[in-house]
Amino acid sequence: MATLEDLGVSAFINIVGAFIFLLLFAVLRIQPINDRVYFPKLYIAKKRTHDHRGARRAINLNLCTYFKFLSWVPGALRMNQTELIHHAGLDSVVYLRIYTLGLKIFLPIMVVALLVLIPVNVSGGTLLNLKKDVVFSDIDKLSISNVSPGSNRFFIHLLMAYVFTFWTCFMLYKEYSNVAFMRLHFLASQKRCADQFTVIVRNIPRVSSHTTSETVEEFFRRNHPDHFLGQQAVYNANRYAKLVKRKERLQNWLDYYQLKFERHPDKRPTGRTGCFGFCGGEVDQIDYYRARISELDKRMASERQKVLNDPKAIMPVSFVTFDSRWGAAVCAQTQQSKNPTQWLTDWAPEPRDVYWENLAIPFFSLSIRRFLISIAVFALVFFYMIPIAFVQSLANLEGIEKVAPFVRPIIEVKVVKSFLQGFLPGLALKLFLYILPSVLMIMSKVEGYVSLSSLERRTASKYYYFMLVNVFLGSIIAGTAFEQLYSFFHDPPSEIPRTIGVAVPMKATFFMTYIMVDGWAGIANEILRVKPLVIYHLKNMFIVKTERDRERAMDPRNIQLGENLPSLQLYFLLGLVYAVITPILLPFIIVFYAFAFLVYRHQIINVYNQEYESAAAFWPQVHSRIIASLLISHVTLFGLLSTMKAAYSTPLLIFLPLLTIWFHKYCKSRFEPAFRKYPLEEAMEKDRMEHASEPSLNLKTYLANAYLHPIFHMFEQEEQKEETTLEVRIDKSQQQQQQQHHVRSSHTQYEERNTETHYYHEERSSSQYQYQYQHEETHMRSEQSPPHFVYHHEIQP
Amino acid sequence: MATLEDLGVSAFINIVGAFIFLLLFAVLRIQPINDRVYFPKLYIAKKRTHDHRGARRAINLNLCTYFKFLSWVPGALRMNQTELIHHAGLDSVVYLRIYTLGLKIFLPIMVVALLVLIPVNVSGGTLLNLKKDVVFSDIDKLSISNVSPGSNRFFIHLLMAYVFTFWTCFMLYKEYSNVAFMRLHFLASQKRCADQFTVIVRNIPRVSSHTTSETVEEFFRRNHPDHFLGQQAVYNANRYAKLVKRKERLQNWLDYYQLKFERHPDKRPTGRTGCFGFCGGEVDQIDYYRARISELDKRMASERQKVLNDPKAIMPVSFVTFDSRWGAAVCAQTQQSKNPTQWLTDWAPEPRDVYWENLAIPFFSLSIRRFLISIAVFALVFFYMIPIAFVQSLANLEGIEKVAPFVRPIIEVKVVKSFLQGFLPGLALKLFLYILPSVLMIMSKVEGYVSLSSLERRTASKYYYFMLVNVFLGSIIAGTAFEQLYSFFHDPPSEIPRTIGVAVPMKATFFMTYIMVDGWAGIANEILRVKPLVIYHLKNMFIVKTERDRERAMDPRNIQLGENLPSLQLYFLLGLVYAVITPILLPFIIVFYAFAFLVYRHQIINVYNQEYESAAAFWPQVHSRIIASLLISHVTLFGLLSTMKAAYSTPLLIFLPLLTIWFHKYCKSRFEPAFRKYPLEEAMEKDRMEHASEPSLNLKTYLANAYLHPIFHMFEQEEQKEETTLEVRIDKSQQQQQQQHHVRSSHTQYEERNTETHYYHEERSSSQYQYQYQHEETHMRSEQSPPHFVYHHEIQP
Repeated sequence: MATLEDLGVSAFINIVGAFIFLLLFAVLRIQPINDRVYFPKLYIAKKRTHDHRGARRAINLNLCTYFKFLSWVPGALRMNQTELIHHAGLDSVVYLRIYTLGLKIFLPIMVVALLVLIPVNVSGGTLLNLKKDVVFSDIDKLSISNVSPGSNRFFIHLLMAYVFTFWTCFMLYKEYSNVAFMRLHFLASQKRCADQFTVIVRNIPRVSSHTTSETVEEFFRRNHPDHFLGQQAVYNANRYAKLVKRKERLQNWLDYYQLKFERHPDKRPTGRTGCFGFCGGEVDQIDYYRARISELDKRMASERQKVLNDPKAIMPVSFVTFDSRWGAAVCAQTQQSKNPTQWLTDWAPEPRDVYWENLAIPFFSLSIRRFLISIAVFALVFFYMIPIAFVQSLANLEGIEKVAPFVRPIIEVKVVKSFLQGFLPGLALKLFLYILPSVLMIMSKVEGYVSLSSLERRTASKYYYFMLVNVFLGSIIAGTAFEQLYSFFHDPPSEIPRTIGVAVPMKATFFMTYIMVDGWAGIANEILRVKPLVIYHLKNMFIVKTERDRERAMDPRNIQLGENLPSLQLYFLLGLVYAVITPILLPFIIVFYAFAFLVYRHQIINVYNQEYESAAAFWPQVHSRIIASLLISHVTLFGLLSTMKAAYSTPLLIFLPLLTIWFHKYCKSRFEPAFRKYPLEEAMEKDRMEHASEPSLNLKTYLANAYLHPIFHMFEQEEQKEETTLEVRIDKSQQQQQQQHHVRSSHTQYEERNTETHYYHEERSSSQYQYQYQHEETHMRSEQSPPHFVYHHEIQP
Repeated sequence: MATLEDLGVSAFINIVGAFIFLLLFAVLRIQPINDRVYFPKLYIAKKRTHDHRGARRAINLNLCTYFKFLSWVPGALRMNQTELIHHAGLDSVVYLRIYTLGLKIFLPIMVVALLVLIPVNVSGGTLLNLKKDVVFSDIDKLSISNVSPGSNRFFIHLLMAYVFTFWTCFMLYKEYSNVAFMRLHFLASQKRCADQFTVIVRNIPRVSSHTTSETVEEFFRRNHPDHFLGQQAVYNANRYAKLVKRKERLQNWLDYYQLKFERHPDKRPTGRTGCFGFCGGEVDQIDYYRARISELDKRMASERQKVLNDPKAIMPVSFVTFDSRWGAAVCAQTQQSKNPTQWLTDWAPEPRDVYWENLAIPFFSLSIRRFLISIAVFALVFFYMIPIAFVQSLANLEGIEKVAPFVRPIIEVKVVKSFLQGFLPGLALKLFLYILPSVLMIMSKVEGYVSLSSLERRTASKYYYFMLVNVFLGSIIAGTAFEQLYSFFHDPPSEIPRTIGVAVPMKATFFMTYIMVDGWAGIANEILRVKPLVIYHLKNMFIVKTERDRERAMDPRNIQLGENLPSLQLYFLLGLVYAVITPILLPFIIVFYAFAFLVYRHQIINVYNQEYESAAAFWPQVHSRIIASLLISHVTLFGLLSTMKAAYSTPLLIFLPLLTIWFHKYCKSRFEPAFRKYPLEEAMEKDRMEHASEPSLNLKTYLANAYLHPIFHMFEQEEQKEETTLEVRIDKSQQQQQQQHHVRSSHTQYEERNTETHYYHEERSSSQYQYQYQHEETHMRSEQSPPHFVYHHEIQP
C-alpha cells in the first residue's frame, strides 16, 4: 500500500507534468504556424481567416506574450451560455454542464465531509490494534477504517450518507430539469430544418411487382394521406465509395510527386511500380499516377451508371418527408404495419448525423447482431480484467514482497519504489484504455445504429461497463486478492466479505493516483494536442499546396463523447463511493472538475468542431449513470459497515437505495420523454407559426434533397466535369406533372439538378445550420466518402 | 423425505378426492334446482331460459342420467374454436391455449425424458454410497442424483437440456405467432365499438379561467384539428356511490322482512333498532326500513344535484373521441404535451373494462403509490416465507425426528405419517395462498391502473413472484435448511452450494404431492363450485322474489386470471426445472394439464362470464414467464451439475441461457407490439371499409355516451321515477348548434336523453358486444355502483 510519501511523489510528478504541458501549450499556441492546430474552430466558424494568419510571421517573437502562460483561462470563460450554444451547439454546452454539476455536487459534500467526517475518523484510531496482517497506509487513518468496529460513530457516517445522497439527488433533479428545458427551448427556437419534417423508414418489405420507391409511395399515400409529401430512396454505393477512396489515395501521391517536382524542376520523380516500390519497371511517377487516376475515373463512371440503373442498388430504407412537423411527429411515434418488424419508423437524425453504412440492415440481422455484440462486450469486459489485474498488483509492492521476497532489493531503492507505486499503475491502465474506445465504436457500428450520435452513446455505455468492472471493481477486488492472498487461502471463506469491506477504503490511494494521472496530467495533455499538432505539420510539409488543402489538413476533432462520458462518470462514482468512506479523496476530484472544465471550455470555443447536434440527447444516460454510482456507493457502504459490527446503524441504510431508485424512476418519467419524443403540441405550434409567417413556403422544394448522401456530391463533381451546368427552377406544377415518372429509367435528368444539392453542408460548423441555396465548390472535396447514395426521385425539373 | 409409499397414499387420497368431487358434480349438475349454478353462462347468453328450467321439477328423478357421470366431458369439447370465441370471447379461448401449450411442450418432452433419461439415471446408482447423512427417497433413484459424480452420463443430461429448451422455444414461438394472429384477426373482424375511437386522457392540467371540459376541448381542437370529435368528462361521485350501497343494504333487509311477513301474514316482524338489535326501542321492521330508505332517497337526490352542479366534481380525466380509428390510434401513441406528466394519452379500455375509481390519481401520486406498493410486495413476498417455511418443515418428518426425537412415537404411526407427509404440506400451502389474491388485487388497485384487465395482469404478476419465491424457492431452500440443519452448522460454508444442488432433485416428491393436491383435487373442486352453490341457495331462500332477483343471485364469476395465470406458470416452471433432473414428475404435470383443460373448457362454455374482453392482452406475460422458467431451469441445472463434478459438461450449459434470452428479445420485438399498439395500417383499412359500407354513419351520435359511468344509470332510474320519459331524436344539425353549450349549467336537459344511454350493457355477455339503441329496464338494477359519474356534455338534443 502506498504511503503518504508515495502519494506526494506521484502528486509532484503529475503536477510538474501538467505544468510542463501547460507551459508548452502557452508557447506553442501563440506561434502563428500552429494557429490552425489550436484555433481550428475559429477558422471553421469564419471568426479567424487565413489573412489574419498570413499577416504575421511563422514564429512569434513578441516576448511579452510568453510570460502570460495562463492567458488562455480568461479566454475560456469569455462567452456566456447563449453565445456558446450559438458558437458550438447545445451538445457542447450541456457537456460542460457535467463538469459544473460535478462541482455543484462535490464542493458542498467535500466541505461537510472534511469538517465532520475527518475529525470523527481521526479520533477513532483503532485500525492499528485491530488487524495486523493487512497492510495499510497513513491515508487510512483519515478514513472510516480508522473507526473502531461497533462504534456509535457509524451513525454519523450513516447520516452523512443520507445527506450526501439527498444533496446529489437534489442537484441531479435541478440539472435534469434545466437540461430538459434547455433542450426544449433549443428545439423550439431552432430554425426550420429538414429533420423536423422527415422520418426514417426501415425494413420496407419487397413487393415483387413494385420498386421500393413505389411501395413506399403507395404505403404512405394510403396511411398518411393528409400529410405525406415525398420520399428519398437510399442507394447502395459501397463499391463506388471504395473506388472514391482509392482515387483519393492516388491523388495524394500525385500531389506529393508534383510538389516534389516543383521544388526540384530538374529531376522528374521516378519509381518502381510493383511490390511497394522495390521491383517492377521504372516509371515516371507523375505520368504513372495520372494514368491510373484517369483509368479509375472510367471505372467510376461505369460504376456510377450501375448504381443509378441497377434496381438492386436501392435499399429497403427511405427518408419519408411530411408537409408538417405534426405529420412527421405522428408517423415517427406510431406503429405503421401489422407486422411490427416491417415499416419501422423513427425520427430521422440530422442529415449530418446519419451513419449511412448501417441503413440497410434487416430486422432479423439486427437482432442477432445486438445479441452477439452484447456477448462480445461481456467477454471483453470480463477477460480484459486479467492483464489489468496483473498490472494492478504491481501497485502493492509490499504484497509482492511478501509473495516473492527475492525482488525486494530492487524495489526497495527509494526512487524506483515511489515511481512504481505512484505513477505506473495509473499509466499502465491508461495505456490499456487507449485503444479501447475505437474497438467499442466498431462494435457499436456492427450493432447497426443509424446515427452517429447514437453510436457515440452506445460506445459510451459499453465503455462505462468496462470502466466499472475493470477500473473500479477490478482495482478493488483483484488488487485486494493479491494483497490478501495469504489470508484468503488460510481463513474460512466466511471471512471474504469482511476482507473486501476493509479493502475498499484501502484502495483510496490508488484512486488518488489514478485521478492525478488520468485527470490532471491527462487533461493538460488534452489541451496540448500533441497528435494533431504533429500530423498537421507533417501534412503541411508533404501534401498542402493550396489554402483549401490547408483547411483539409486541420483536424479539429470533437468532444469524443464515447470516451469522455464514461471517464467523467467514473469520477462521479469515485467521488460518491469515497465521500463517506475516505473523504480526503474529494479534493482531488474537485481539482479535476475545475481544471477539466476550463480546459474543455477552451477547447470547445477554439478547437472542437461537433459533427452533429443531438440537442443533449446524452443527458438521460449521464443522469442514470450518476444514479447507478449512488447505488454502488450505498452497496459498498453497506458491505463495509456490516464488517464493522455496526449492527444498529447498518439496517437503516436499506431505505437509501430504495429512495434513490424511486427518485430515478420519477425523474425518468418526468423528464426522459423530452429526450425521446416530440410532443404534438410543440409540433403544431411551430407549424402554425411558420404557416402564419411564411404562407407561401414551398416545403417540397425545401426538403427535396435534404437527405442526400454525401457521395452524391462526388457524382455531381463528375458530372460537372463532363457537362455544362444547367440552372434549373423547380415549380410545383412541374413536379406534379412528373411525380409518377421514375428517375432511374432516365438517368440523364438528374444531372441537371446540381444547383440544389449542397445547401446543408454550408453551415456544417454552426449548430443551428440553415439551408442556403448556393452552390459553393469549396466544400465539395472536403466530403468524406461513405458507401451509399441517396437520390430523390420526385423533384424533377 | 417422503418415500414412494407416502407418495402412493397421497396419490390415492387425491385421486379419490377428485373422484368424489366429480361424482358430486355429476349428481348436482343434473338437478334442475342447481341449473343456474352450473350453467349461468348459458342463461346470460340466452341459450337457456327460465322456461326451460321451470318446465321441470326441482330434483332430477331420471335414473339414467345418474350413471353418465363423465357426460360433461364431450360437452366440454363440443364447440370449435371459432364458436367458442363467439360464445366466450378471445380471452377465454387464449387462456385455454395455455393448457394445450403445456401439453404440446411437455408430452414430447416426457416421452423423450422417460425413454432416455430414466434408464440413464437408474443405471447410474451411486447415491447410496456417496452421501450417508442426507436423507432421500426411492424417487431419487430415477433422478439425476443417482448418477455418480464426474460421470460422462451428464453429457446426456446436457444434450437433453438443449433439446428441451429448443423444443420449448419452438412451441413458444409458434404459439406466440398464433395468438398474435388470433388477436389481430379478432380486432380486425370486430364490429365497430367505442374503444376503437376513444382515447383516455389523464392528468389534464387545471387552467384557472376554464373548466376542465373547456380545457380539453381547446387542447384537442388545437392539436388534433382534423380528427377530434368530442369528449366525455368524468365526474367524481364517490359519496353518491356510498349512499347507493347503503340503500342497497337497506333494500335487502326490507325484502327479507317483507318475505318473512308474506310467509307468516299473522305476525309483522319487529326488532330493536340500536346496537345490532339488542337495545333501543321496539319497531315494526318493514315500516322502519321503508322510512330509512325514503330518507336516504332524499339525501341521494341532493347529492345528485351536487355532483352535477359542483365544478369540483369534474375530475382531470376525460374520454376523448375521434372521428376515425386512425385519429384515435395517432393520439393514443403520441406524446401530447411538452410536460410529459400532463395530457397522458392511452387507448381507452373497453367501457366494461374501465376501473372508474382509479381515473383521477395524479401523476406524482401514481409514482409514489407504485413505489410503495413495490416495497409492500417485496415485504409480502419475503416475510410470508416464515410461516410457509415452518409448514414446509413438517413435510420432512425424518428431519424433525432428528432434531426433536421425542415426537417420534406419534409420527411413527403409519397412517398419521403418510397423511402428514402426503397431504398436509400441500394443503397448508394452498390455504395460505387462498386469501392472497384478494390482497394482491387490492395492492394493484392502490397502484392506480385504470382497467380491470391491467389490474388482473398486475395481480397475476405479483402473485407469480410470490409463488416463485415462496412455493418454489421457499420449498427448496427452507425445506432443505431444516433437513440439513445439522450439516449446515458444522460443515464449512463452501459446502452450501453443493447441498442446495443436491436438494433440488430431493424436493421432487414434495412437488408431486403439490401437483396432486393443487392440480388434481383443486381442479375437481373448481368444477363442483361449492361456494357459489351454497351462496346461490342461501340467496334463493332469503332474498329472491322475482325472476330478476334470481338472475342477480347467479354468480357466474370469471376465469380469475390474477390467480390462475401464476399457478399455471408455476406448473411450467416445475415441468421445465424437473424435466432434466427428475423426469418422473412430468406425467403428473401432463395429467394436470389435460384434466384442467377439460374442466376449464367446460366452465368457460357453461359457467364463467368474462366481464371484459382484452383480446388476449395477457399473452406476452405468459410467454415471458415461461422464458423465465426456462432460465431458472438452466440455472438450477448449472448449480446441480457443478456440484456433480461434471467439469467437462457444465461449461457447455452457458450458451443455453444466452440463446434463450436472445430468443425472448427477438419474440418481444417481433410480436409484442401487436399486443401494445394499434398499427395505423390496420386503423386506416378499417376506417376505409367502414366509410365505404356506411357513408352516412353518424359517429358522433354513436359515440355519444359510450363511456358513461355505470352510476349514471342510477341517476336515470331516479329521474324516471320523477318524470315522464321523453323520446328524443338527435340529428347532427342540432348537435352542432349546441356544441358550445355546457350541460352542467342546465341540468334539466340531461333527463331527456335516457334513450341512448344503455346500449353497451345489452350485450354484456357476448364478447363482441354490439350497441343497440333499445331501452331495457331489466339491466338497470343489475349494475353495480362505483363512485363516479360520466356525462357527455356535447350531445344535446
